[in-house]
Amino acid sequence: MKTLSSFVLDRWTAGNAPLATLVNPATEEAVAQTSTGGIDMGAVLDHARAHGGPSLRELTFAQRGELLKAWSKALHAARDELISLAMQNGGNTRGDAKFDVDGAIATLAHYAELGAQLGSLKAQRDGEPVQLGRTARYAGVHLWVPRDGVAVHINAFNFPAWGTAEKAACALLAGMPVVSKPATSTALVAHRLSEIGAPLLPRGAFQFLCGSPGDLLDRLGPQDVVAFTGSSQTAAKLREQLSKRGARLNVEADSLNAAVLGPDVAAGSATWDLFVSDVARDMTQKAGQKCTAVRRIFVAPERLGEAQEAIVDRLSQIHVGDPARAEVTMGPLSTADQLRDVRAGIARLASESAAVFGGDGSVKALAPEGKGYFVSPVLLVARDPAKAQVMHRDEVFGPVATLAAAATPAELVRRGGGGLVCSVYSDDRDFLRGCVLAIAPYHGRIYLGSEKVVGQTMGPGTVLPQLLHGGPGHAGGGEELGGLRGLQLYSQRVAIQGDRALLDAIAPARQDEKS
Amino acid sequence: MKTLSSFVLDRWTAGNAPLATLVNPATEEAVAQTSTGGIDMGAVLDHARAHGGPSLRELTFAQRGELLKAWSKALHAARDELISLAMQNGGNTRGDAKFDVDGAIATLAHYAELGAQLGSLKAQRDGEPVQLGRTARYAGVHLWVPRDGVAVHINAFNFPAWGTAEKAACALLAGMPVVSKPATSTALVAHRLSEIGAPLLPRGAFQFLCGSPGDLLDRLGPQDVVAFTGSSQTAAKLREQLSKRGARLNVEADSLNAAVLGPDVAAGSATWDLFVSDVARDMTQKAGQKCTAVRRIFVAPERLGEAQEAIVDRLSQIHVGDPARAEVTMGPLSTADQLRDVRAGIARLASESAAVFGGDGSVKALAPEGKGYFVSPVLLVARDPAKAQVMHRDEVFGPVATLAAAATPAELVRRGGGGLVCSVYSDDRDFLRGCVLAIAPYHGRIYLGSEKVVGQTMGPGTVLPQLLHGGPGHAGGGEELGGLRGLQLYSQRVAIQGDRALLDAIAPARQDEKS
Repeated sequence: MKTLSSFVLDRWTAGNAPLATLVNPATEEAVAQTSTGGIDMGAVLDHARAHGGPSLRELTFAQRGELLKAWSKALHAARDELISLAMQNGGNTRGDAKFDVDGAIATLAHYAELGAQLGSLKAQRDGEPVQLGRTARYAGVHLWVPRDGVAVHINAFNFPAWGTAEKAACALLAGMPVVSKPATSTALVAHRLSEIGAPLLPRGAFQFLCGSPGDLLDRLGPQDVVAFTGSSQTAAKLREQLSKRGARLNVEADSLNAAVLGPDVAAGSATWDLFVSDVARDMTQKAGQKCTAVRRIFVAPERLGEAQEAIVDRLSQIHVGDPARAEVTMGPLSTADQLRDVRAGIARLASESAAVFGGDGSVKALAPEGKGYFVSPVLLVARDPAKAQVMHRDEVFGPVATLAAAATPAELVRRGGGGLVCSVYSDDRDFLRGCVLAIAPYHGRIYLGSEKVVGQTMGPGTVLPQLLHGGPGHAGGGEELGGLRGLQLYSQRVAIQGDRALLDAIAPARQDEKS
Repeated sequence: MKTLSSFVLDRWTAGNAPLATLVNPATEEAVAQTSTGGIDMGAVLDHARAHGGPSLRELTFAQRGELLKAWSKALHAARDELISLAMQNGGNTRGDAKFDVDGAIATLAHYAELGAQLGSLKAQRDGEPVQLGRTARYAGVHLWVPRDGVAVHINAFNFPAWGTAEKAACALLAGMPVVSKPATSTALVAHRLSEIGAPLLPRGAFQFLCGSPGDLLDRLGPQDVVAFTGSSQTAAKLREQLSKRGARLNVEADSLNAAVLGPDVAAGSATWDLFVSDVARDMTQKAGQKCTAVRRIFVAPERLGEAQEAIVDRLSQIHVGDPARAEVTMGPLSTADQLRDVRAGIARLASESAAVFGGDGSVKALAPEGKGYFVSPVLLVARDPAKAQVMHRDEVFGPVATLAAAATPAELVRRGGGGLVCSVYSDDRDFLRGCVLAIAPYHGRIYLGSEKVVGQTMGPGTVLPQLLHGGPGHAGGGEELGGLRGLQLYSQRVAIQGDRALLDAIAPARQDEKS
């Protein structure tokens, strides 16, 4: 069995026993083992600070962008291999694996392009200079400068390629060295992605910990950043731990993403079809293990029956099983623990709703008898959505959603307490304006499904590098991506005031902004 | 003796005993008493949520700006009264009092003008829309929307007028209702400022708690914001308390602000004079009780003697005493506790430096014998600045600074662990570029003192509404002001994606941005 190493202090280093075992969640066969035991986390951070930070800060944005471009191209060249690893270790179908791997390739390429656009700068201006004195000579300008620390990335098990790449792209382009830690259970893809990327990057700019972070977090300070994707419970512990260290923390956690069908949308219309197809895909893609998956579906009371029928029809076409088999369209959950949690979540949801597809999640999967962490897609219908608690509170991280009749959906959407994304399907401008503005403070992203964008969108569940990813409240309060906004987490915003000529010398504008 | 009330639920309400007593720190005479005992903090928050938030969000930026303009004008009309209260309760000289009161008036006026510029919008776009699909029809736009909660403001004792106004201006313009709490010891000015403002604002938009916040903070949630100015110790408690509630927290805490003299600046030059005069003022204005006051002064080794001589010369011209006396140029510290802390801080600094002015801080003040919380301006010279600990760690919140010889000042500046402002005095572009970029990640603001801005600047200690106020690390990691950046704390940034025509209908651009 393959033993995965960590990339620290310029070399691939195997950890000491005990080793964790990575399995194929469709067959429960072991595929690799790993450990970070014995790795000196203080030395890892020192290496990033001594070599990675200074090297990256010395580069222009264009040069940092070139690094990302090289990594993106190298991943593209290894695409088939990465897809195959994702299918082995992630329970991904071929389509799921492409979604993850292509997301990584595209996000690195997007940030490479942003770097090229910023050209010879090393730090970005925030807005225009402002006059402060009687004359234009005395002025102030705001600048985003790279933080003088280390970016620690703690990724989730569901997107080992995309998660690793999107966080690294933002930090490296901002000028911060990275220590990246995948979820151990699905680390195979992240490990290969790092093997490909590490030789392309400056010394100390990217290190990879294939397993536990040990005491790494207890060694951070105020110039360091932790970007965490995972559960609210782990996030709460990190908040406590890191606030004592003064490190900046970005959290992307649980989200009860809703899909809202406008009362104007009639069954069979183009917008209706977009709604049904988005909901079915975002329930079942990656077996529902997406932080942006649809968990709650709100429709006008008079549309409930038709909506239920249409979604159930789509779900009934899903073939659950081992993704190695050609006919399978939904794979297993990633781990035995996830299966246990999802089963328990379905049971909790069933206390206030009725399953209309998939029952308790038991399924006869296309897989070796008795093996694999399979669950059926499950659609429940809420008995009383206003009184319901579980559906607005518990993120069941599988192919499970609750459908509910709602005359005033915005109120129920807000009951989720803050989410990553909400999708609203309507062609009625007044309904959209009212609904969107009512739910906007509770979301990081809102997707409008309407007739005019049919055929152009990839649905609400696809996180795009151009738009923010994150959400307030329940979703953790973080912000990633959003084009150059994604660099802000890794930057300090500083105002500089003085003689305008000196400001322009210290903090030049982009060439195309120079007047 | 006057009893101060709180403005809650549309009325001025006196609290129950026991009452806290506010004194004149120059004479120790009681000037007022106050308490929030018996006030139902849950009802205060409910009132803001039920009335203040909806009213403000219904207004355009221009209309919110009009409210701030009215408040600013009303304060200007009451300027003499406010200055007099500041002198009574704050230990302020007339100049100190003007600095605080005029800062409040100007900051409200600045945000009123920003509101006028944003005109009929209710939410600001962040950047330009981006194309997401094959055609320009499918696009995304980012929007800053008001958070759907309450902005709780916890102000420091040193700027009862400016602190209350600058926080309120940003929150109200952003569209969030405010609950404002001054430091009890110097609440007289904040109370009068609130008395003047409250009738001018919509119902529930501004409430004022004249004393302890009781259990207010334990009632907050993820859409609420706390903006705190005060000590690192209190900040640490708030971080723990509020992270459990999910409320957003902005901290402006301790800061070891440095002034750096470039090696090119010769004694007697215009830049030298600016340095000496800025340092002396920012050590002694408000008796050094400014979060932006100069605490550390770094000069090239060969300039140490001349710098010491020049600063001592200025300090020796200070007259410490009761600000009611015309000849007094520096008043007392605000409270007996502050005096105790500053005395202890001077003693700690003296363990690694030698006082060259002011000794241990004892002073024969122009005041009633044996009364008042007076301290002398104190200048110390560090024996070994690289080995020193206290001068880089302990904010001594009084007219106290440490001068140190430094061949490579940026390294020592960074030892402060993150500050609000650093001033750098030089006319050498290369020195400035190197120094500024080296210290930039450790600061919220950097002030360049050079020949060409002499006569136009108010020194590094003056916080301007146009520029960010806050700093990383030791300084708390917060951001306030900075023009419209100051509204971001009170806003949720949300990406909206869909048909471009719908986006423009839901989230219109500023009129002057429409093409």
